[in-house]
Amino acid sequence: MLRSHTCGELRISNVGQTVTISGWVQGVRDKGSLLWIDLRDRYGITQITIETDKASKELVDVARSLGREFVISVTGIVAERYSKSDKLPTGDIEITSDKITILNSALVPPFTIEDETDGGDDIRMKYRYLDLRRNAVRKNLELRHRIAIETRNYLDKLNFLEVETPVLIKSTPEGARDFVVPSRMNQGEFYALPQSPQTFKQLLMVGGFDRYYQIVKCFRDEDLRADRQPEFTQIDCEMSFVEQEDILNTFEGMIRHLFKSVKGIDIPTLSRMTYADAMKFYGNDKPDIRFEMKFVELNEVVKGKEFKVFNDAELVVGICAKGAAEYTRKQLDELTEFVKRPQIGATGLIYARFNADGTIKSSVDKFYNEEDLKKWAVAFDAQPGDLMMLIAGETNKARKALSELRLEMGTRLGLRDKNTFACHWVIDFPLLEFSEEVDSTSIGEKGGRWHAKHHPFTSPKPEDIELLESNPGAVRANAYDLVINGVEIGGGSIRIHDKNLQAKMFSLLGFSKEDAQAQFGFLMNAFEFGAPPHGGLAFGFDRLCSLFGGADGIRDFIAFPKNNSGRDPMINSPSAIAQAQLDELMIQLKK
Amino acid sequence: MLRSHTCGELRISNVGQTVTISGWVQGVRDKGSLLWIDLRDRYGITQITIETDKASKELVDVARSLGREFVISVTGIVAERYSKSDKLPTGDIEITSDKITILNSALVPPFTIEDETDGGDDIRMKYRYLDLRRNAVRKNLELRHRIAIETRNYLDKLNFLEVETPVLIKSTPEGARDFVVPSRMNQGEFYALPQSPQTFKQLLMVGGFDRYYQIVKCFRDEDLRADRQPEFTQIDCEMSFVEQEDILNTFEGMIRHLFKSVKGIDIPTLSRMTYADAMKFYGNDKPDIRFEMKFVELNEVVKGKEFKVFNDAELVVGICAKGAAEYTRKQLDELTEFVKRPQIGATGLIYARFNADGTIKSSVDKFYNEEDLKKWAVAFDAQPGDLMMLIAGETNKARKALSELRLEMGTRLGLRDKNTFACHWVIDFPLLEFSEEVDSTSIGEKGGRWHAKHHPFTSPKPEDIELLESNPGAVRANAYDLVINGVEIGGGSIRIHDKNLQAKMFSLLGFSKEDAQAQFGFLMNAFEFGAPPHGGLAFGFDRLCSLFGGADGIRDFIAFPKNNSGRDPMINSPSAIAQAQLDELMIQLKK
Repeated sequence: MLRSHTCGELRISNVGQTVTISGWVQGVRDKGSLLWIDLRDRYGITQITIETDKASKELVDVARSLGREFVISVTGIVAERYSKSDKLPTGDIEITSDKITILNSALVPPFTIEDETDGGDDIRMKYRYLDLRRNAVRKNLELRHRIAIETRNYLDKLNFLEVETPVLIKSTPEGARDFVVPSRMNQGEFYALPQSPQTFKQLLMVGGFDRYYQIVKCFRDEDLRADRQPEFTQIDCEMSFVEQEDILNTFEGMIRHLFKSVKGIDIPTLSRMTYADAMKFYGNDKPDIRFEMKFVELNEVVKGKEFKVFNDAELVVGICAKGAAEYTRKQLDELTEFVKRPQIGATGLIYARFNADGTIKSSVDKFYNEEDLKKWAVAFDAQPGDLMMLIAGETNKARKALSELRLEMGTRLGLRDKNTFACHWVIDFPLLEFSEEVDSTSIGEKGGRWHAKHHPFTSPKPEDIELLESNPGAVRANAYDLVINGVEIGGGSIRIHDKNLQAKMFSLLGFSKEDAQAQFGFLMNAFEFGAPPHGGLAFGFDRLCSLFGGADGIRDFIAFPKNNSGRDPMINSPSAIAQAQLDELMIQLKK
Repeated sequence: MLRSHTCGELRISNVGQTVTISGWVQGVRDKGSLLWIDLRDRYGITQITIETDKASKELVDVARSLGREFVISVTGIVAERYSKSDKLPTGDIEITSDKITILNSALVPPFTIEDETDGGDDIRMKYRYLDLRRNAVRKNLELRHRIAIETRNYLDKLNFLEVETPVLIKSTPEGARDFVVPSRMNQGEFYALPQSPQTFKQLLMVGGFDRYYQIVKCFRDEDLRADRQPEFTQIDCEMSFVEQEDILNTFEGMIRHLFKSVKGIDIPTLSRMTYADAMKFYGNDKPDIRFEMKFVELNEVVKGKEFKVFNDAELVVGICAKGAAEYTRKQLDELTEFVKRPQIGATGLIYARFNADGTIKSSVDKFYNEEDLKKWAVAFDAQPGDLMMLIAGETNKARKALSELRLEMGTRLGLRDKNTFACHWVIDFPLLEFSEEVDSTSIGEKGGRWHAKHHPFTSPKPEDIELLESNPGAVRANAYDLVINGVEIGGGSIRIHDKNLQAKMFSLLGFSKEDAQAQFGFLMNAFEFGAPPHGGLAFGFDRLCSLFGGADGIRDFIAFPKNNSGRDPMINSPSAIAQAQLDELMIQLKK
């Protein structure tokens, strides 16, 4: 080993020992008679000292030749520092060096290897191996490792088996777009990379595996929005002989274990909210419940005056922001502009200030007198000092816009602390949703069709099955999402295990019998041979890590991420391949 | 939960409790007044009893309607059995059932769900989910899970970080054939699936990660021989600031930990053998050292008589099979045929029996008298009762053939017990090997070229570097394989961390500067910025599991394997994809 200790290990108790450490030169300070080197590795930073008048000329020459990020090995004696540093765990000691070996030189890095770097996103991706040296990035990946280990510990103790499912599988038109892999041995045919191991984990349940999990790479060839990656990682789980309650309890336990073991945080029992309530009170199927600010529906309160905007609206709905009554006109104009942005889509924002003196002033005083506004305040349970904000329109659009406004107000009022964690379940999702869009992979009639809200293997609630034909949109599923701080961290369902129900589901989704058989025949066949009741869920592992790390994006929690064009600028991938490779695969490029 | 206990859990101490268990009907025995059901799940089998004259007609009807592999839930009282069974852990008890719920019916399975099944390979693959129900297959995957957990435990304790490297990477012409993935967002360009995370783990070392591992899927588009899979799993590891000795010690520790924790076996310190010795004494770079039977080179002993075969041979080499002198002529003819098979390639087999009475009789008595044969016996250190077997020819071919014969004799003499484990290192591999073959992905001059024996990132031994130009074939590498029972379970090397040496290596392998830069420029660039000395290795995880399970093949240690055509007959993959998918990818099939 080219070291006896790491750069994060030596303490006052090591004083007097002869040690060898290796690492990267973080910096050199040369004061003439004294020369210091900060040597860094994954474990920490240790200070090396050379008294230039006492050391050999050779040693001093080597030390003075060192540049940033040189890789060196240093042998010397651990000494107590004259002036200690409490910024470093090794701050009580230094190494009086008598030997320095340069293991490798280094060009000056294109950005500083420090927590706050001067490198932009592009250059950091191109030189990802340098970015990984930064404490901030490395800590994220250490956290990721720790969460994976604790996930496995928890599930292993509960008799879950980690089983690897295949990566080269079969393309299916349902869901997002597949990445495909041409088969050389089966010419004209293609494998697909899995968007999830969904069908395989169900087959494992049919195979009697009882409890399965896998931390597994999945793939989606989607146009990348910010913070989407073409390959991503899931904690994928499935259990047999369970009902929804069992899944919720098991994985609530897992999340609480992770918070406790990785972050030392005790998470209280998770509350549950129906999808219907989530939409009604937060306008969002993944509400951030770190703060209240619930929606208040106001049709009964505000309609019937001369104000056409409210009278014509399907829904008038609002939130009450505590202590925001003193927002300036400028701030309120900003918020109005905010909700009118195309991606939010409200036509405007109505507000009413409940002033500290007890008066209420609204932006629609022309239509509503103080008496009317008092009724608003009662509906909102508003207090002096509060700001009431109302949006009107078609129900879904008004809710969506108000949800964005609520989150914006939460941020502005400092109610969304990244180190506070509010976890809860959203349950009773609808089984199906109607989509007007016809995408390239749609099967079924043009002009829209029912899509599975979760996926086509999700079971309807037994009491709603009779609605499948008559009112598909009203059927609720045994489906659930785990939401933390407004982020969907996990989701799953109790699956269909009955072949006939599964066939009916495919039919509702517009699959012909032949298509269903061609795509999912293996699963429906498996259901003929004794499928147990089963269900499960999957967690977005990248997202979970990012949340635990208190970050917004996932990119710095992935060792080698891709950019928004799906490229890895470091290795310059994807790239052209040789004609011989194309020939062997019997494919050619279209001009 | 649709059960209070599993089918493997109830014991005499549970007698009197009311319980619910769920599982698959293994079998029903109906004796008229008594009816037994064996109910099976992953955890075991529990016997259910129904006294048909005491039970309700409804219950009896349900019980009599059950077929094999029906999924049922049974509620009843745990009772002590009249006639206990010591074959099952639950054999002391049975459940007197008062309620049976059919959770799912089942068609008669196409093969029996028992340890010794009547299903052939093809049907078992098509119905893999049924094959997975068999104890024998499930136990393999439970073993795999356990080995993975213990691998992670060991490495985690030594500060190794599990880091996920990307699956969508870049195609390189070196090595085996890549699977490629057309990129829709970067038209005309392709990702490749990794044959190993080699370059990424080296970049992690450049990035200061110090100790990395990953249990990771890798991919090779090769023509499949028996027991090769297009996707396979490695335990991939890398360490910084190490020398070969450190790697050997660390991973010897891992293997010993796995044997101890998973199988309860203490493995002694691993011996080490040079590649040169492995070839000389076993004719094989992965010798099975569960038994001795070392090669004895006989040129000095046998040449100079009238026997042209020996006189003309580059090498005459033999083994001595203890106690096999009484092999019949028929057996010896079989062995002669064995070595003459084209895939083994010897021209013949010479043998000499050292009889119990002290006489020696050979198949070449015409050329060698008793005196000569005594000299053979001395060379072999043979005793009365032993059989000496000799092969002659070109050195490499003779060794290869004799290696096969040695293994065959080991098997015939019962020296290769699957529950005995002989682990050792083979070290000092040659850096390069010359290949006459020109494959489709070769770069460099036609008519053969130097290939990296391990891979192009392996470092030569410092003392051999001067031979790189003058005698490339003689350069030894800091490369090592872990061999268990004649199977290469792991292999790796100390890597090149110097840019200039890496460039020279690429040049030796026939890469032009431009090709090297295009393919591996990112790695050589990384080496400019302070690469630490590093090395590592990778274990074949499927193979390791199979070895631990005492099996020959890997297929039953993979949940969903592919067949020899690279197909998954269960899901019928690969398959044709829609024209719309091809169009989006801007590729077309060649006729």
